[in-house]
Amino acid sequence: MITRDNLLENKPLVIAGPCSASSREELLKTAYEVKKMGAQVFRAGLWKARTCPDSFQGVGDKGLKWLMEIKEKTGLLVTVEIQDSQQVDLVRDVSDILWVGSRNMQNFELLKKIGEDPRPVILKRGFISTIKEWLGAATYMGLDKVILCERGVRTGADAMRFTLDLNAMLVAKHDYGVPVIVDPSHTAGRRDMVGHLACAGIAAGADGIIVETSVDPEVEQVDRDQTISTEDFGILMNRIYKIYST
Amino acid sequence: MITRDNLLENKPLVIAGPCSASSREELLKTAYEVKKMGAQVFRAGLWKARTCPDSFQGVGDKGLKWLMEIKEKTGLLVTVEIQDSQQVDLVRDVSDILWVGSRNMQNFELLKKIGEDPRPVILKRGFISTIKEWLGAATYMGLDKVILCERGVRTGADAMRFTLDLNAMLVAKHDYGVPVIVDPSHTAGRRDMVGHLACAGIAAGADGIIVETSVDPEVEQVDRDQTISTEDFGILMNRIYKIYST
Amino acid sequence: MITRDNLLENKPLVIAGPCSASSREELLKTAYEVKKMGAQVFRAGLWKARTCPDSFQGVGDKGLKWLMEIKEKTGLLVTVEIQDSQQVDLVRDVSDILWVGSRNMQNFELLKKIGEDPRPVILKRGFISTIKEWLGAATYMGLDKVILCERGVRTGADAMRFTLDLNAMLVAKHDYGVPVIVDPSHTAGRRDMVGHLACAGIAAGADGIIVETSVDPEVEQVDRDQTISTEDFGILMNRIYKIYST
Amino acid sequence: MITRDNLLENKPLVIAGPCSASSREELLKTAYEVKKMGAQVFRAGLWKARTCPDSFQGVGDKGLKWLMEIKEKTGLLVTVEIQDSQQVDLVRDVSDILWVGSRNMQNFELLKKIGEDPRPVILKRGFISTIKEWLGAATYMGLDKVILCERGVRTGADAMRFTLDLNAMLVAKHDYGVPVIVDPSHTAGRRDMVGHLACAGIAAGADGIIVETSVDPEVEQVDRDQTISTEDFGILMNRIYKIYST
Repeated sequence: MITRDNLLENKPLVIAGPCSASSREELLKTAYEVKKMGAQVFRAGLWKARTCPDSFQGVGDKGLKWLMEIKEKTGLLVTVEIQDSQQVDLVRDVSDILWVGSRNMQNFELLKKIGEDPRPVILKRGFISTIKEWLGAATYMGLDKVILCERGVRTGADAMRFTLDLNAMLVAKHDYGVPVIVDPSHTAGRRDMVGHLACAGIAAGADGIIVETSVDPEVEQVDRDQTISTEDFGILMNRIYKIYST
Repeated sequence: MITRDNLLENKPLVIAGPCSASSREELLKTAYEVKKMGAQVFRAGLWKARTCPDSFQGVGDKGLKWLMEIKEKTGLLVTVEIQDSQQVDLVRDVSDILWVGSRNMQNFELLKKIGEDPRPVILKRGFISTIKEWLGAATYMGLDKVILCERGVRTGADAMRFTLDLNAMLVAKHDYGVPVIVDPSHTAGRRDMVGHLACAGIAAGADGIIVETSVDPEVEQVDRDQTISTEDFGILMNRIYKIYST
Repeated sequence: MITRDNLLENKPLVIAGPCSASSREELLKTAYEVKKMGAQVFRAGLWKARTCPDSFQGVGDKGLKWLMEIKEKTGLLVTVEIQDSQQVDLVRDVSDILWVGSRNMQNFELLKKIGEDPRPVILKRGFISTIKEWLGAATYMGLDKVILCERGVRTGADAMRFTLDLNAMLVAKHDYGVPVIVDPSHTAGRRDMVGHLACAGIAAGADGIIVETSVDPEVEQVDRDQTISTEDFGILMNRIYKIYST
Repeated sequence: MITRDNLLENKPLVIAGPCSASSREELLKTAYEVKKMGAQVFRAGLWKARTCPDSFQGVGDKGLKWLMEIKEKTGLLVTVEIQDSQQVDLVRDVSDILWVGSRNMQNFELLKKIGEDPRPVILKRGFISTIKEWLGAATYMGLDKVILCERGVRTGADAMRFTLDLNAMLVAKHDYGVPVIVDPSHTAGRRDMVGHLACAGIAAGADGIIVETSVDPEVEQVDRDQTISTEDFGILMNRIYKIYST
């Protein structure tokens, strides 16, 4: 079993993959590519939390065996978003790292259940959570296994989908001593801005990034406009490493 | 079984009671008082969603029989906040109206479970939800049984705990045709402002209010500073009815 | 000369008129109508602060004589927005009440100049000003002659143009003791919501309202969609007085 | 006379100096230090826009000769914030670059006056301006001579003084083609975070930074807690250049 400390031995931690799994082939191709370019962890949503019930809700349980195949063939670690207490057991063999999304940041029953599990867990910040709420939620699961993820807050500023809040990331990291990664995809909402924001996060001191990436962004059913191609991911990796070493 | 339409036959709908149940005696006394002054529904939290795990987490299951006694003795309807799918069954005999809190507004697994239940449900708005997210969440449960509850949004404005967003309440009501009540307690965070904001909500067109009230606010373990006394509740009720009839 | 105390002798203070003056005829007709329905003060912008330089910038100085005619014929008081130190002298004969817009709330050179003038002044709140900034700006002019105006703040909430912040209005009024009026027009951005928000403001305790009104909203060059007709203004006045007396 | 294009020939553009001038000696020492470390432009406020009238309002006109001495002795360019139309003439000999602060971003009379002047101008973004408002304000002065400055927006997020909005900076730069610099000092409000945020801005693609710097931050009368020492400025410059070249 991987621990949070193992995960962060070779920083920056890079997590890549599509927002939502759509087919075995796409997943496998994307996984091989991002592995080659330096990613350590593969991400792909199986059960998607969607604003409206008639939107695509993810491929569900059948994606579990696709991810298991990816783990075995590529050697990548895998992380899957958990939205319900019962899914914690369901992903036990597949998900090396658990992951709680923004909408469930204060789903305390889920947090308590994850608290019983030894795996490291990524906790995305809620849409406008305070530092106290974010750290409080982390404490429900255990501060020593949590990696916080800043993904943008909803504000009166209208430039992109969300405003990336590096100030909050810095406070979580420096004042509370918890590792923090940045999600540039959801804050951007547009592909051409993802790299700029990822680099900003790393320059500010993030311990890693989580980036929506696919060999073919145009086939994505969720978050298509903010998913970067594996080619662009490769270019980004190059710059990320350079900035990290400054 | 009460339906949403029955509930709204005598508007404004008034829901009152303490934030969190603390003792049988306090609950019963408060219930008799608010009933006498015109409330139709009694509220009291049993399992409290708290930002930090070491805060008081509510009296839990043992409060269920207290609420049952209140229903029988006072004739008030009862509403209890549900935070987990399993609690839906637990409150079946007690809670005439289900209720989803702000932190669970997009806990879609919970929403789907409640969607299978015929009871009316109050859906509090998330800390900074868009209209689309709020109505989307309601749709998961069934638009014909939901009563939306505006409780203030987190903004850059610093006057009180949250900014009461009557604009959003109006859009939900007029553009989407869903009944909406206002929670003046959480937005205020201070007792002396609760009445002013409740009256504003009714004047704007809210179908009702939900107000944290106790015979003895000083003994409250949660939200003490924003809980009004039953005396003040009585004064508020008087003005609410006058404004509603203008 | 009118003083602030005189102005507030017959509350609620009601200020009405078009966003921007367009013709003598429209102004005069509108003034007669709103006077008849109970307004005490007439408003009309002459120099308009517009986001982009190629938008209509107002009729300018020539509107001064139109407003003078209105004062004389209808007996209404007049208020004109001042955007520059030099305009303070320019409006001396016409504007019984000075008025500083949101964009100039912290234009301290302008505030100091107005501070030398004895007339009462309306100070609109900036787009996201804190209470301290709003009151600080008022102090530059003299707290005993200022009437604060809440007109909505820019937030992450997307329901209407701005979020009306009655919480801030209440703090300014109760914690600082300064009179406050509400502008329901700019926060709404849509005509059908203006009345609901005006009533909410009065129910919360506002000392008055300022409402964009015209005999013919469709001819307005600025803020057309949020300007109500004088017919609707009459209906609103009826309800406003009833709520104020509850 | 320096033009905007000349200024941006050697990017990143670095502007440093104290928030507010306090004495000739401190200014001169700070100027020599930041020049040595690579700054191209010296900043120091003379007339300070303060929230409350009883706060320190700056040294005023007497600082002009101090800045003139610095220009002559160090060869640095100078920029001074202008708060009123009349100050445009007052700083003509001293200020190579004009500068409009956040509170005056929509002081259109000031913008028009500056529009008649050929000098380049820094336009700080208002506390929660939209992209359209920011670019609209720039258009009043002339898009070809403006350098936009992102300095943080006021939001519901509570981590630091303001939330640095790199998303808006990126949209201004890429969608509108206007040069943009970042002010990490005002968004941070605390010295230890200034460097992290400055590096984030440069990594995201900013054309430069403006940083509050002093040989002795502890003597500063304004913004003391966010002013970095010239030693820390030197360390920051090293990293800024490395990141800029990645």
